[in-house]
Amino acid sequence: MPDKTYYELIILGAGPAGMTAAVYAARKQMDVLIISENVGGQTTWSAEIENYLGYKFITGPELVGKFEEHVNEFNVPHEFTRVTRLSRPGANFAIETDDGRTFTARAVIVATGKSPRLLGVPGEKEFTGRGVTYCATCDGPLFSGKEVLVAGGGNSGLDAVVQLMKICPKVYLVERDPKLRADAVMVSRVTAAENVEILTATAVVEIRGETFVTGVTLKGLDDGAMRDIPVEGVFVEIGLVPNTDFVKEVLRLNPIGEVPVDCAARTGIPGLYAAGDVTDVPEKQIIIAAGDGAKAALGAYSYVVRLPATDDWGRMST
Amino acid sequence: MPDKTYYELIILGAGPAGMTAAVYAARKQMDVLIISENVGGQTTWSAEIENYLGYKFITGPELVGKFEEHVNEFNVPHEFTRVTRLSRPGANFAIETDDGRTFTARAVIVATGKSPRLLGVPGEKEFTGRGVTYCATCDGPLFSGKEVLVAGGGNSGLDAVVQLMKICPKVYLVERDPKLRADAVMVSRVTAAENVEILTATAVVEIRGETFVTGVTLKGLDDGAMRDIPVEGVFVEIGLVPNTDFVKEVLRLNPIGEVPVDCAARTGIPGLYAAGDVTDVPEKQIIIAAGDGAKAALGAYSYVVRLPATDDWGRMST
Repeated sequence: MPDKTYYELIILGAGPAGMTAAVYAARKQMDVLIISENVGGQTTWSAEIENYLGYKFITGPELVGKFEEHVNEFNVPHEFTRVTRLSRPGANFAIETDDGRTFTARAVIVATGKSPRLLGVPGEKEFTGRGVTYCATCDGPLFSGKEVLVAGGGNSGLDAVVQLMKICPKVYLVERDPKLRADAVMVSRVTAAENVEILTATAVVEIRGETFVTGVTLKGLDDGAMRDIPVEGVFVEIGLVPNTDFVKEVLRLNPIGEVPVDCAARTGIPGLYAAGDVTDVPEKQIIIAAGDGAKAALGAYSYVVRLPATDDWGRMST
Repeated sequence: MPDKTYYELIILGAGPAGMTAAVYAARKQMDVLIISENVGGQTTWSAEIENYLGYKFITGPELVGKFEEHVNEFNVPHEFTRVTRLSRPGANFAIETDDGRTFTARAVIVATGKSPRLLGVPGEKEFTGRGVTYCATCDGPLFSGKEVLVAGGGNSGLDAVVQLMKICPKVYLVERDPKLRADAVMVSRVTAAENVEILTATAVVEIRGETFVTGVTLKGLDDGAMRDIPVEGVFVEIGLVPNTDFVKEVLRLNPIGEVPVDCAARTGIPGLYAAGDVTDVPEKQIIIAAGDGAKAALGAYSYVVRLPATDDWGRMST
C-alpha cells in the first residue's frame, strides 16, 4: 500500500493548540494527520505551570504527557518533519515538507507556535546544543559551576539570569540597548547580585569553541571596542518569532508575522484555521492555545462535512 | 467597615470562563470580585467529559471542583446573587443585583453563560424542582420507575429520552415540529424503543399536579385535539438562551442574544470583555470557555493598569 498523503484535515504543530485540535477532530471521526517537528512545543520548557485550570500545579513535561496520552487514545497519525510550504493549488491545500513529500488536505490548522529568535552570529548554529541554548529552564542546571553569558535584557533574559546566578560563579548579561528592558523588580534583583556583570550597549559578535563553547567575542556599540570573555554557556533570550514563513503564499500576516484570526480561529480563508502562539491573539497561554485549538478543529469539521466530495487533486468526484 | 462595593474587575458568572478569568486576574494581583448565582454553570450537568485536555475522563462536578479549588487558592471574594443591570454612568461600570445592591468596577467580564429555554406554560414555574426539570443528566436517576415526558425533539431531547428509556416504564417524547430534529442515529434508537411514545406536531399546554407533578395536558397542533397524560416527571429540553438581558443597555447583541467578541474576548467597549457560552463564539465547550476566560482577564488587566487613578465614582483622583 502506498503511503497515505491525503487527509480531510492536517494539523501543523503538536503543542497545546495542535494536540487539542487533534483530540477534537478525532472525536468527530475526522480523517486527520498531525505534522510537527516535536511534541509539546514551548510547553516542554516550563518548569512550573500554575495557571492551567484543573491543575493547581503541574510541570510542562507532565502536562505535555497528559495531552499526548489523550491524543494517543485516538491513534492519530503523526509525521515528524518540518513544513516548508503551504499552498492551495486547487480546492484542497497542499503541504510540502522538508523531507521532500507533499500532503494534501481539505482543511488545515496552523498551530506551529513560535521559535526562539537567533542571534545570527558566527558559531551560533555550530554550537547549538554544545553550549548555546535557547531555554534556561530546560538547560540551566547543566551549567552549574560554569561561567555563562545571557544575551537579552528583557524579562526572559533576566529570568534566565536570576536562575543562573544561583548556580554559576559568574553570569554576563549582554543587551544591545543602552538599558535593560525588563520589569524593575527583576532589574534591581540582578543589579544587586555580586556575580552578575551587566553589559549594556553591547553585542555578541561571535561564539567560539572547539567541540563545546569556550568563549564569546563582544563589541561595545558606543565605542566599537572588542572584548573576548571565557564562558562555557551562552543563553540566547532575545524573543520569539512566529513559525509562519511557510504560509506567506496564502495568508497575510500581521506586522510581527503572526496569523490574524477571529473569535472562531478562522483565518479568513475557507478551510484554513490557526490557533495558539502563532496567531495574533495577544496573550500566549497554554489554556488559550488549547481553547483555540478546539475552536479550530470544530470549525474545520463543520467546514469539511459541508463540502462536496472531491478526489486527492481537489476535483469533484461525483 | 462598610461592605466593599468597588473593585478593579468584576467577573459576572462562575462557570469555566468566569473561574479561569478569576484565577488569571488573581495571579495578576487584581482587586477582583465574582458575582454569580451558582458555581460551575452548565458544567455541573455533565456526567462525562472526555474532551477537557489534561483529563481523558472526568465528570462535570469533579472538574468544577478542581476549578473551584484553584480559584479558592486566591481567596477571590464571591457574591452569590443575580445581576439585573449593567450600565456605565461614568468612567466605571455599575452593576445592579437582584438584592438591591450596586457594585462598581473599572473593568467587567461577562461570563454569565446560557440558561435553559422555558416552555412558558401554566404549572412550569410552580413545579420546577418538583417534577419539572431542565437537566436529564442531573435529575434523570430520581425518576427511575416513573412515567415521564421529554419536551424537545432535538439532540438534547433525544439524549434525555435515551437515558430515561432505560430506567422508566414509559417515556413520552413531545415535539412541536412535524418531525424530530435530532441526528438520525438517535432518532432510530428512540423509534425502536418499545416504551417510548413519540408525539410530533404536539405542544405541552399545561403541567398539572398538587405538591408534585401528576400529569400534563397536550394539544395536537394539526387537529387541536387535547389529551391528558399521567406523568410524574417533565424534562424540558428545548434549547438554551444566553443570559444577556442585563447587558442590553451597553452592548449590541447578535440576533440570538449572544455577545459578539473578537479573538481577544473584547466586546468593543473599552474595559468590557466576554467569554464562554454567552458569546458568539460558535462552539460551546469547557476548554474554549476556559481559554477565552483567560484572554478576558489578561485583557482586563492590561486595560486597568493603563488607566489613570479614579475614585469609586469614576472621577480622576489626581
